Amino acid sequence: MGEFGLIERFFSRAGGDAELGVGDDAAIIATTSRTAVAVDTLVSGVHFPQDTPAAAIGHRALAVNLSDLAAIGASPRWFTLALTLPTLDEAWLGAFAEAMLKLAQQFGVSLVGGDTTRGPLSVTVQVIGEAPEVALLRAGARAGDSVYVGGYLGDAAGGLYCLLHDQPEGAQRLIDAFHYPQPQLALSQRLLGVASATIDVSDGLLADVGHIARASRCDVDIQRDLLPCSSTLRRLFAPSQVSAFALSGGDDYVLCFTAANPDLAEELDGITRVGQCVAGTGAVRVDGMTVDNGGYEHFNSR
Amino acid sequence: MGEFGLIERFFSRAGGDAELGVGDDAAIIATTSRTAVAVDTLVSGVHFPQDTPAAAIGHRALAVNLSDLAAIGASPRWFTLALTLPTLDEAWLGAFAEAMLKLAQQFGVSLVGGDTTRGPLSVTVQVIGEAPEVALLRAGARAGDSVYVGGYLGDAAGGLYCLLHDQPEGAQRLIDAFHYPQPQLALSQRLLGVASATIDVSDGLLADVGHIARASRCDVDIQRDLLPCSSTLRRLFAPSQVSAFALSGGDDYVLCFTAANPDLAEELDGITRVGQCVAGTGAVRVDGMTVDNGGYEHFNSR
Repeated sequence: MGEFGLIERFFSRAGGDAELGVGDDAAIIATTSRTAVAVDTLVSGVHFPQDTPAAAIGHRALAVNLSDLAAIGASPRWFTLALTLPTLDEAWLGAFAEAMLKLAQQFGVSLVGGDTTRGPLSVTVQVIGEAPEVALLRAGARAGDSVYVGGYLGDAAGGLYCLLHDQPEGAQRLIDAFHYPQPQLALSQRLLGVASATIDVSDGLLADVGHIARASRCDVDIQRDLLPCSSTLRRLFAPSQVSAFALSGGDDYVLCFTAANPDLAEELDGITRVGQCVAGTGAVRVDGMTVDNGGYEHFNSR
Repeated sequence: MGEFGLIERFFSRAGGDAELGVGDDAAIIATTSRTAVAVDTLVSGVHFPQDTPAAAIGHRALAVNLSDLAAIGASPRWFTLALTLPTLDEAWLGAFAEAMLKLAQQFGVSLVGGDTTRGPLSVTVQVIGEAPEVALLRAGARAGDSVYVGGYLGDAAGGLYCLLHDQPEGAQRLIDAFHYPQPQLALSQRLLGVASATIDVSDGLLADVGHIARASRCDVDIQRDLLPCSSTLRRLFAPSQVSAFALSGGDDYVLCFTAANPDLAEELDGITRVGQCVAGTGAVRVDGMTVDNGGYEHFNSR
């Protein structure tokens, strides 16, 4: 079975929403006047360990892109998949496609185009959707705004640690958080007109809230004891490690946002207030200590 | 300089046409109601030799995607770039970005989003544009239609051969054809309402015209002596090799299309009639001999 058969076999059922779909040179989709676009690549050995299950790779490659649209308040509708594989393993590909298409169905997005090539394992997804009239931005936070996160922090980093080291009882829940992040699209829609600045936590809270701080030209004070961490994470790791995962771990793909309302957590289920914006120029502090908020950068020359 | 600085430095000047651009989680673009999308990945050592100049990789990664939109008659407007690099080499990246953005400017397309990761060299571009009211399709060719190509065939394959073997005087012209393909967007617009079926020649004439034949449920007869090949290709290679490059070489990115008018070459500059559609079920013949029209497939299990 060649490339064409491969694409058709595993993915042709996905493109129902496009006029031209997988197998044509390009797809045609019925857009509105404001379209949102995001792209993210996952590389084996960089973004996930090389022995990561195919289903997790398929889920995660789409989830991280859906999360990017959530971060600006857009509604995903379509996606394209560029898949680079070292070998054709039908079982692998079946599991990959099934998990990816299941997540796609959950959020009503259609695969409308793809490219399959041979090479080191890597997955690039581009997601396309409808942008809101007024998008959520990184800029817009003001001194006095509260800082919120949309869910647990640190579980994904704890899960990755368990994958790379040892896996005590209960670790599976954290590993699942790393493998199967849930993009917060429903929360994102609730934030339209409410949040003053928004980002998704991909590189770690400090790095990502740092983007908000710099874009908004204010400082951010995070309170360590407010960070929402799961009981599993707290049970399996020492408090200092829990804090490190929650502050710098990344990969949680929960939304981080600011809002003028300090009591928003009473209105929106699942969100937690973790700090406050204050006058400044983009610094991030944890319990009053300024931190180097460089998150995970792929080309760090230091 | 980390990832964020990298993206900003080389690519921030590109996204003028988007409301949110490179550096935000997602871009917002002003689409019309019918939007065309295509995606293609180039992997080092698979789609180009590992020592290919950065400028050629940057140009080619965008060009092959623009060619996909040309194949359906769409007008490209925006693109995203997912770039995976083994190391951060500023000179390399500068040459890559300059060539890519020069081609983008030539065709009026804006870079609106990107992702840079560390890993084996690979470039995925997704191009987004305006679809025509009635798209050019692979299906639609009818018995009696003539088969045309939009430019020279075989130059790119000849160039790749020269790159991998030896480079006689004059080879640079062929190597440039491989490195810097020119997407036929102007021709594509002329074909709207004229061509009955269209594809771009990426995998080789026989493979690509085979897609038209199968999608259109007709046979295609190609005449070898009609194939347009450059004087350089004919001078540097024996006739049998010239034919092989022209029929099976790929990478030329000229359009191949069918039309009822057998004299279209008198109306449209640069196109050449190379054969005819006849009643059938998808076979391709060259001078009457049926050929196995499997083009380059990345996962060929044979």
